[in-house]
Amino acid sequence: MAAHSPHLLPDHACLIVHGSDRPGIVAAVSALITRNQGNIVAFDQYSDDPTGGAYFQRVVFHRPDLSAALPGIEADLARTLGEGFDLEWTITDQSVPKRMAILASKQDHCLLDLLWRHRRGDLPVTIPMVISNHTTSADDVRSFGVPFFHVPSTPGPDKSASEAEIVKLLAGNVDFVVLARYMQILSADFLNKLGVPVINIHHSFLPAFIGAEPYKKAKERGVKLIGATSHYVTDDLDEGPIIDQDTIRVTHGDSVAELARRGADVERQVLSRAVLWHAQDRVIRHGNHTIVF
Amino acid sequence: MAAHSPHLLPDHACLIVHGSDRPGIVAAVSALITRNQGNIVAFDQYSDDPTGGAYFQRVVFHRPDLSAALPGIEADLARTLGEGFDLEWTITDQSVPKRMAILASKQDHCLLDLLWRHRRGDLPVTIPMVISNHTTSADDVRSFGVPFFHVPSTPGPDKSASEAEIVKLLAGNVDFVVLARYMQILSADFLNKLGVPVINIHHSFLPAFIGAEPYKKAKERGVKLIGATSHYVTDDLDEGPIIDQDTIRVTHGDSVAELARRGADVERQVLSRAVLWHAQDRVIRHGNHTIVF
Amino acid sequence: MAAHSPHLLPDHACLIVHGSDRPGIVAAVSALITRNQGNIVAFDQYSDDPTGGAYFQRVVFHRPDLSAALPGIEADLARTLGEGFDLEWTITDQSVPKRMAILASKQDHCLLDLLWRHRRGDLPVTIPMVISNHTTSADDVRSFGVPFFHVPSTPGPDKSASEAEIVKLLAGNVDFVVLARYMQILSADFLNKLGVPVINIHHSFLPAFIGAEPYKKAKERGVKLIGATSHYVTDDLDEGPIIDQDTIRVTHGDSVAELARRGADVERQVLSRAVLWHAQDRVIRHGNHTIVF
Amino acid sequence: MAAHSPHLLPDHACLIVHGSDRPGIVAAVSALITRNQGNIVAFDQYSDDPTGGAYFQRVVFHRPDLSAALPGIEADLARTLGEGFDLEWTITDQSVPKRMAILASKQDHCLLDLLWRHRRGDLPVTIPMVISNHTTSADDVRSFGVPFFHVPSTPGPDKSASEAEIVKLLAGNVDFVVLARYMQILSADFLNKLGVPVINIHHSFLPAFIGAEPYKKAKERGVKLIGATSHYVTDDLDEGPIIDQDTIRVTHGDSVAELARRGADVERQVLSRAVLWHAQDRVIRHGNHTIVF
Repeated sequence: MAAHSPHLLPDHACLIVHGSDRPGIVAAVSALITRNQGNIVAFDQYSDDPTGGAYFQRVVFHRPDLSAALPGIEADLARTLGEGFDLEWTITDQSVPKRMAILASKQDHCLLDLLWRHRRGDLPVTIPMVISNHTTSADDVRSFGVPFFHVPSTPGPDKSASEAEIVKLLAGNVDFVVLARYMQILSADFLNKLGVPVINIHHSFLPAFIGAEPYKKAKERGVKLIGATSHYVTDDLDEGPIIDQDTIRVTHGDSVAELARRGADVERQVLSRAVLWHAQDRVIRHGNHTIVF
Repeated sequence: MAAHSPHLLPDHACLIVHGSDRPGIVAAVSALITRNQGNIVAFDQYSDDPTGGAYFQRVVFHRPDLSAALPGIEADLARTLGEGFDLEWTITDQSVPKRMAILASKQDHCLLDLLWRHRRGDLPVTIPMVISNHTTSADDVRSFGVPFFHVPSTPGPDKSASEAEIVKLLAGNVDFVVLARYMQILSADFLNKLGVPVINIHHSFLPAFIGAEPYKKAKERGVKLIGATSHYVTDDLDEGPIIDQDTIRVTHGDSVAELARRGADVERQVLSRAVLWHAQDRVIRHGNHTIVF
Repeated sequence: MAAHSPHLLPDHACLIVHGSDRPGIVAAVSALITRNQGNIVAFDQYSDDPTGGAYFQRVVFHRPDLSAALPGIEADLARTLGEGFDLEWTITDQSVPKRMAILASKQDHCLLDLLWRHRRGDLPVTIPMVISNHTTSADDVRSFGVPFFHVPSTPGPDKSASEAEIVKLLAGNVDFVVLARYMQILSADFLNKLGVPVINIHHSFLPAFIGAEPYKKAKERGVKLIGATSHYVTDDLDEGPIIDQDTIRVTHGDSVAELARRGADVERQVLSRAVLWHAQDRVIRHGNHTIVF
Repeated sequence: MAAHSPHLLPDHACLIVHGSDRPGIVAAVSALITRNQGNIVAFDQYSDDPTGGAYFQRVVFHRPDLSAALPGIEADLARTLGEGFDLEWTITDQSVPKRMAILASKQDHCLLDLLWRHRRGDLPVTIPMVISNHTTSADDVRSFGVPFFHVPSTPGPDKSASEAEIVKLLAGNVDFVVLARYMQILSADFLNKLGVPVINIHHSFLPAFIGAEPYKKAKERGVKLIGATSHYVTDDLDEGPIIDQDTIRVTHGDSVAELARRGADVERQVLSRAVLWHAQDRVIRHGNHTIVF
């Protein structure tokens, strides 16, 4: 049984606004919140070019009896931001956890770390399922009270059968998917059918060491730092928008196996931060970039 | 001749608001900016208790022909924030550099680093003078085109004579003072007479190793990290509000001299960040704390 | 079932030598290893004063059929280092895991991290038991195949009854003890009776915030970094020799609860490094300091 | 006038040994030092494969009246390491500073940092000259008492004329060369003629962002960390053996200019560490790798 997450905030809404910058957006949005009895508790905004570029805003506000008020607020947003602005917006109830599925393979350090963080209430999510192409972690996953499904990877280059089975399990049941060192490459078709964000952890400081065996490549190049990168998955392998990265110091004496062992700590740190930020609606995608508030 | 700092922003104002939190502050402030033809380019706010604590806000906005408009904006602020709010505010023209004096002693690493950063345009300040109780750095300082004054420390415990001389040099000429490893303790009377913020760099991770010889104490305790702390100076030695801190890894093999040598790098990094943030009006003091936006 | 640790090295011995520095120690020790058919694979030495201070040395050497050869090597060491040197030495077979007991309370992040690292083979130890003054972690511990014993803390200031019960469980069964956020203060008498090293994790960058509630104290002081410290336990609370420390950056916006949540990551990192280094015989105690090779 | 560097050690020798690993090297080398009246004060060794790979060793020893004894020690080394070992060795007197030339262009942060560190005694080198393809830093360099030579870069792709002029200045006068953000690519022919190690600083975490404008590429890729890499220069641009690297955290809000400003701090830190380690004979090149003791 997971502890209640302090990141789930009753009667708090998170409003994300982005589009073309122009004067008056902050005033329009904040006036809207005020006239709907909201009190702003966090406000972040960023404009990539003050003289008319892209505009990004995240506002968290407290509003008593939020769920009853939400339809009215949404209607007001449609009216207000529809007039004279070129903006998109989404509003979410911060007391509702996002549903997160985890895909994993044999390596369990990222998987177990997410399950454990969830159990202690660090992540404002529910975990409806873990899917793996191996059975090794089944008992561990179920001991956390989380359903485990084994979907073996279809042999050969065509993964459409196993991908179809995964889509069937996930469709409609999850708000986002985390690849916790899942060692299968997902097809563009799979990502399209899935239709929800997918977060991956790559075991290098991207764009260094794209592709397979980054620790081996790091050893061969003789780097003095290794890293990990969490990013949204796109059709281009290891090229999606980066959410977070970090590095640690290594030495000439570290073998590839030791790099992998030490890197595991960075991977789980970076992935858990990316998951937390995504679950808190802190990450806005913009082309191949992210704005992280 | 110093390069023009990219941190000096023509026709940009920075508005700091703080006081008691209540609904509607963001809306009131942003409506005010909009009706005064300002476009918000950076907005940060923090409330230490959403159900009625202290409220802090920093807004940077662009307003063509700012200097002409500023008196009107100030009058509007007085009207708007005077009605129904319990708030203090300050507004500054971000194209006007703050005047920063540096007090130093024999060690020059923080002093030279600030002079060099200023020359290359990294700090949005002018440096009207450097004052030292030693003459060792006179030539260096003057080679940067900065006036140097030697004020020897009055022998004995009573420093009122030398402090009076320093106050006479600084009074009315500076907006804030930086103690760049200045090795004299300043009296409460001096700070009162000075009347502008004073930023110090302490060569430890405060509150560890308060007082003299922190590197020696660090060696004696056998710590595995050393650090530096930049803080506003108050009557209580090494107890003022912390602006920034950092640490680096050391080993059993580092002598006290080696700790001092390596610590010098952290000191100048931490001090330069604190100075930049103060000069950009990013730091708000609140009791013994700082909010850094 | 724990994976075999790559840190357990068959036919490898670790020799620790320390005492008064004088010329010829390296030559004497390395000649001894060579004449006993050993090949040195790692060599570290440190002298705190080259002109006659304390000397510390750690050598790992490979020697085929080590266990049969060890008595002869020990006799040679006794002869060699007994003649003309003022040195102490210990030699350990690096294929033999140390027996590590863990004492814990309600918070499980350090406990579970050690159990999980052990299972995946990261720590060259066995874990004969976990003892807690609470029952909350019993199922988790046993799911790792590790015995769990519940020893409630005796009410009142006199803990001799519960301490006696713990000593009875540990005596003769363990080589060192880890306090994984164990929230009871251990008496000098207990430490004496135990007779093996005890490693603690303190949730601050010592010597800052000694004693209870360091995250609350950190919030009150307004620090910009929080940290954790792993140290050997001595009679003086939070004053023992430091093995490792680390810090992470926090902001004015982090509540005490958030500091604790984020600090948990640093705590388990720092503790696991200290445990690994101790288990690998990399840490030599010298007064209130450690030499970490 | 530069302060005397504490890294210059009277009557201390540094012996570097590398080659094929086999049992007895440590014993042979340490016996040699002992019989030549040396006392070992630092000893590092590394073997990339304990069962017969490459062997690397760095020993610093104190020997009264070293300069008189050095020829005898060198003869002993030739005898001892020539018999039955496949090893190369170099021995240096640690009281003799290496002669370091600096090549720079318009950006001065790395150049001035090295000059300043040298002046305060942090680097055990002399600086016989600075060469630049611009004149902007001439006064600064000469204010440190260091000769400055202006060698404009030959227009067009063929740089042989300017390279020849640089070689003429450096030949026989320097022990190594530092490229302190020198913005000209050096030809293989130049490196051959120079015949001494050349250390470069690249303004990215290599192998990410090889080539020109790494900060622009970093911004385009949307990385969350930027870095710097110090490496020995080889014929392959940005592919030489890495000596040190580091990274710092950036955000979506940092412009390319801000990345360059903040990156300058990492560049000078990383370069100064690489220079110090090289000057202390701590870095051994092995193929495209370095061993850093």
